[in-house]
Amino acid sequence: MIVVFRPGAEESRIQDVIERLNEYGFDVHRSSGVNQTVVGAIGVKPEFDPRHIRVMEGVAEVYRVTEQYKFASRSWKKENTVIDVGGVRIGNEELVVMAGPCSVEDERQIEDTAAHVSACGAAFLRGGAFKPRTSPYSFQGLGEEGLKLLRAAADRHGLKTVTEVMEVGQVELVARYADVLQIGARNMQNFPLLKEVGKLRKPVFLKRGPSATTDEWLMSAEYVLSEGNPHVMLCERGIRTFETYTRNTLDLSAVPVIKKRSHLPIIVDPSHGTGIRGKVIPMARAAVAAGADGIMVEVHPNPDMAKSDGPQSLYFEQFVDLMAQIRLIAQAIGRVIRDAPALA
Amino acid sequence: MIVVFRPGAEESRIQDVIERLNEYGFDVHRSSGVNQTVVGAIGVKPEFDPRHIRVMEGVAEVYRVTEQYKFASRSWKKENTVIDVGGVRIGNEELVVMAGPCSVEDERQIEDTAAHVSACGAAFLRGGAFKPRTSPYSFQGLGEEGLKLLRAAADRHGLKTVTEVMEVGQVELVARYADVLQIGARNMQNFPLLKEVGKLRKPVFLKRGPSATTDEWLMSAEYVLSEGNPHVMLCERGIRTFETYTRNTLDLSAVPVIKKRSHLPIIVDPSHGTGIRGKVIPMARAAVAAGADGIMVEVHPNPDMAKSDGPQSLYFEQFVDLMAQIRLIAQAIGRVIRDAPALA
Amino acid sequence: MIVVFRPGAEESRIQDVIERLNEYGFDVHRSSGVNQTVVGAIGVKPEFDPRHIRVMEGVAEVYRVTEQYKFASRSWKKENTVIDVGGVRIGNEELVVMAGPCSVEDERQIEDTAAHVSACGAAFLRGGAFKPRTSPYSFQGLGEEGLKLLRAAADRHGLKTVTEVMEVGQVELVARYADVLQIGARNMQNFPLLKEVGKLRKPVFLKRGPSATTDEWLMSAEYVLSEGNPHVMLCERGIRTFETYTRNTLDLSAVPVIKKRSHLPIIVDPSHGTGIRGKVIPMARAAVAAGADGIMVEVHPNPDMAKSDGPQSLYFEQFVDLMAQIRLIAQAIGRVIRDAPALA
Amino acid sequence: MIVVFRPGAEESRIQDVIERLNEYGFDVHRSSGVNQTVVGAIGVKPEFDPRHIRVMEGVAEVYRVTEQYKFASRSWKKENTVIDVGGVRIGNEELVVMAGPCSVEDERQIEDTAAHVSACGAAFLRGGAFKPRTSPYSFQGLGEEGLKLLRAAADRHGLKTVTEVMEVGQVELVARYADVLQIGARNMQNFPLLKEVGKLRKPVFLKRGPSATTDEWLMSAEYVLSEGNPHVMLCERGIRTFETYTRNTLDLSAVPVIKKRSHLPIIVDPSHGTGIRGKVIPMARAAVAAGADGIMVEVHPNPDMAKSDGPQSLYFEQFVDLMAQIRLIAQAIGRVIRDAPALA
Repeated sequence: MIVVFRPGAEESRIQDVIERLNEYGFDVHRSSGVNQTVVGAIGVKPEFDPRHIRVMEGVAEVYRVTEQYKFASRSWKKENTVIDVGGVRIGNEELVVMAGPCSVEDERQIEDTAAHVSACGAAFLRGGAFKPRTSPYSFQGLGEEGLKLLRAAADRHGLKTVTEVMEVGQVELVARYADVLQIGARNMQNFPLLKEVGKLRKPVFLKRGPSATTDEWLMSAEYVLSEGNPHVMLCERGIRTFETYTRNTLDLSAVPVIKKRSHLPIIVDPSHGTGIRGKVIPMARAAVAAGADGIMVEVHPNPDMAKSDGPQSLYFEQFVDLMAQIRLIAQAIGRVIRDAPALA
Repeated sequence: MIVVFRPGAEESRIQDVIERLNEYGFDVHRSSGVNQTVVGAIGVKPEFDPRHIRVMEGVAEVYRVTEQYKFASRSWKKENTVIDVGGVRIGNEELVVMAGPCSVEDERQIEDTAAHVSACGAAFLRGGAFKPRTSPYSFQGLGEEGLKLLRAAADRHGLKTVTEVMEVGQVELVARYADVLQIGARNMQNFPLLKEVGKLRKPVFLKRGPSATTDEWLMSAEYVLSEGNPHVMLCERGIRTFETYTRNTLDLSAVPVIKKRSHLPIIVDPSHGTGIRGKVIPMARAAVAAGADGIMVEVHPNPDMAKSDGPQSLYFEQFVDLMAQIRLIAQAIGRVIRDAPALA
Repeated sequence: MIVVFRPGAEESRIQDVIERLNEYGFDVHRSSGVNQTVVGAIGVKPEFDPRHIRVMEGVAEVYRVTEQYKFASRSWKKENTVIDVGGVRIGNEELVVMAGPCSVEDERQIEDTAAHVSACGAAFLRGGAFKPRTSPYSFQGLGEEGLKLLRAAADRHGLKTVTEVMEVGQVELVARYADVLQIGARNMQNFPLLKEVGKLRKPVFLKRGPSATTDEWLMSAEYVLSEGNPHVMLCERGIRTFETYTRNTLDLSAVPVIKKRSHLPIIVDPSHGTGIRGKVIPMARAAVAAGADGIMVEVHPNPDMAKSDGPQSLYFEQFVDLMAQIRLIAQAIGRVIRDAPALA
Repeated sequence: MIVVFRPGAEESRIQDVIERLNEYGFDVHRSSGVNQTVVGAIGVKPEFDPRHIRVMEGVAEVYRVTEQYKFASRSWKKENTVIDVGGVRIGNEELVVMAGPCSVEDERQIEDTAAHVSACGAAFLRGGAFKPRTSPYSFQGLGEEGLKLLRAAADRHGLKTVTEVMEVGQVELVARYADVLQIGARNMQNFPLLKEVGKLRKPVFLKRGPSATTDEWLMSAEYVLSEGNPHVMLCERGIRTFETYTRNTLDLSAVPVIKKRSHLPIIVDPSHGTGIRGKVIPMARAAVAAGADGIMVEVHPNPDMAKSDGPQSLYFEQFVDLMAQIRLIAQAIGRVIRDAPALA
């Protein structure tokens, strides 16, 4: 932590601050220029709130020097984390595609989707059984029945599954059926839930909250990691800004930013990131070009009749196009997407 | 819902849309001008996602006409909701002050605070026992022990209590001790939790999420109301914007906006809204002047040693000042604050 | 400037940075802890871009220590600046009200408005002659004719005037007629214009840009001040956020923030800040309660027929109410508003 | 325009609104359902402010139906605009690269840069002679001398030039030397300047303001187009959001959004969009993948010593890499970048 004093701050004020820092256990270094004094307080105190010092007399500004997270940081672990989900590896040169409907609606819907996305080269089937909806009057998901349908369809087509868990009480149930547990954007700071999935050893798919900085996002990852579960992948899905033409503003610069600050894999979800079907393909291409480790997209056999998020779900033929396009982009930057049996 | 077609849209496209709207059960009215056609679809279908129509050929734009919430709206209930908490009434001419530390830390701390805020005219004692913290390494609260200490201190000084509940599994426990259950900003869209407190008949204190529109906030209130619990009060506590000098940007215009759109009481929290002690008093005055039904402020006997949020907590003498100042402002706009025995 | 190195940064990297800082003329102080080194670079180099150091090898973070502005800062001038506009003093205990239509439309409109606002206790008449409009098809103002009408109406009723200047080429003309020159929000970073009004000795009314931090706002004030014109007042008029129910989000915490960081007076404009007539009065009250030195509000004899911003302009009788209400609030915090002859 | 009435609004209120709409010259269509009435007002009145109706009694909401811009819209002109700058065509299958330093500093700097970027396949040389700087103490550009140096260097290497014009008084001068006139982000709503460049027939490069919606951006383009200059290209360069780790948040979804709403070409500037050198290459790749018509990047022979924006400027060898990478991405999506003589 760095404490900057106002120009001409009285010596007694400076001494008060130094004393306080010593009380907190910091190792203090002082630099005094002609007009201004700066004090460095060295020591890792994650509990310490720098505003304590900021409000003291004579202090102009205080800067936290160390990152607040440890296990999530690139400085703690230099090499990329690669997560192995039953043979599918996330975070190395393979670009992983996760696709499926917003919600699991019935057996036919999820079976058709699984067959299609598998044939195109997706590695994961996505689909919600517990749905967080802004309105209490919207479709809330099929619950355990949805989990079963998702599992069965994925197994028939050699796919892994990822699905959302919304609260502590659902963790055990969802973990019984799913390969990867998704923490939704609105739950990114649901700390009891983060701790609970931290106790598992199943991979966690942590979506960025709509108003979360990359710092806060990595702190949420730290909740999971610090409980002992090292298998965390991050997912950028758009942030809330003043621009409302798109549902959210997809922050693709988060890809290189996370790659620099952390060793965890990062996936991009252009479906929620834009909220408009026609923008999904260009933004999926852009995500791959930016260096994402994978993409998650919504696909539905009949988007016009989908019970949720239909307008941002791709038609089957659009998914074929998307896979063809991102396959070329992936090659251009030295990554591969698994073969598409149907198109081979 | 209003559907606007592109200028010169083909008749067959318009017919497709009308047919689709009929399928969904809407009552359809068409207006065709020289260049442009507009179709009104009347009917309340809260489950319907207007983007279904927006993506159809020939459609330029779609507007949702009816508010998505019902019980939370001023059109459903014209008169202000007044919530009675053991004789303290929130939402009428009395301006209610809720004060106390961020976290309950020990008996002495909460006892001293209760004595002081009660003597100054506060009606509620606040204090967290379960704390949502950005970092897993920060103080997480005393749990049930904190609830007991809060209850006892409040009872000794004739105060009501408000404290946060973080997850479904804690609701029964917190409700046993507290008069009002707080849903924190990060949990504003924790839908299982909203449903759970909706099953109670205890008042709920619903903080606005840092990136929630007033629409989304009222939709979250609707979750509680639609479960049968009518005792919901809202709390503005700052939104996330590009300005980072203050911790959040306190959106005081939310006070008149909510007053127009809803019948629910609205409280303002200038402590979280600014994050800086020196800004709390002016913003508390502003909140009262804007027409808030109450304010919630953090007060601590020794803010410099507080385990959380010390830098935004008021010193005892500052709280005396704050009460004196808002008392005058309240009078100026025809509201009253309860007597302050200590200052009488 | 503070340079924080990564834990374990190589000594040669640290030496490279120190050498570079010396080249730039900084006075360098080094503090090395067990794991981490921090270097303080003392010296005021407003031209220096700290990102030069941030991108060097081994560097974790760089913080600018000194404020980039000088003349605008509270540390440069401790006492409040009071601006005298022909006897009306802005920035002391008097709360100044500036009122009038968005645009000057014709003689009758501005005369009626001047008579009314003067009778209620306003000190300034506002009104645009050159209007910055989002659309090229909207009313662009009366130009010089508008300036003349504004001046004459103000003079007949003992009012001072404030009106916008949009470009360098208009400065001489507008300064001939107006008492205070307004720089609009969209021109807050029109640097040639800021320099031009900096050469005058007439007061400048500098609106905050819709996405400007308080730092950037004060830097724009610095452009005017550094040219030699010390008469700058600031105006908060709402910032752009994700919330679109109100036109902008009025950031009232800017009032105490500016008061702490600068000696310049600060006015609040709740008309543009909310964009909705019904929210203007509560937010004007809140602005006064927060400690603003004045408010600027739009008033029109016939808002329904106004050529611009009618929907956020007050009716005459609403302005009477507003003045009565803020008069009480002003008293409550120890400020005064000039007498209202009509209501005396 | 669509006017939605509150459920149960009185007939007399509805008649008042209809009458008012008729007065404004709208063609009115009414639809009444069981609970609610909706009125459509057809007619293009770009001057009309819908808030006039929104504030009337009984009205719940008002929606503008027609886009406020005409010449900028895709519905006015279906085919893409292709701008020819002395043989370089922007907006067709060729992907155009504009590169160069933030500021022109001296002959050697701009000559070296021109030689290098030309050899790598750039078509345009960029470089500022008039610089808008947040601080009055920062380097403000070489002025006319800079324009001459830019022109000469470009001519020696077969490049076109793009450079910023900051105010009306500079337009004639800048137009004498430059091929394309840039309107900077802070001037996106400098309406006198937009009108002035609208009178030319030289191409205009219009950067998006940091808090401008795509609607406002297209309205600013409309200012230029409506004056008679059809040669406008747009440039996305990042918007201001709560995320401060990057200087701005590059909104790449603006690319497909603009492509749908307008016929004008769109360029992306990842240098300002991220503000960090290490993020420029991935975001440039992403911009190309998203479908941009070109990219603008900052390149400097010695970024560490640059007088402005050095930390976001690429080293020469990085620009070689960037060109190689985006060349592959461009091919993958069916676009071409001109040959690079040096690398042939």
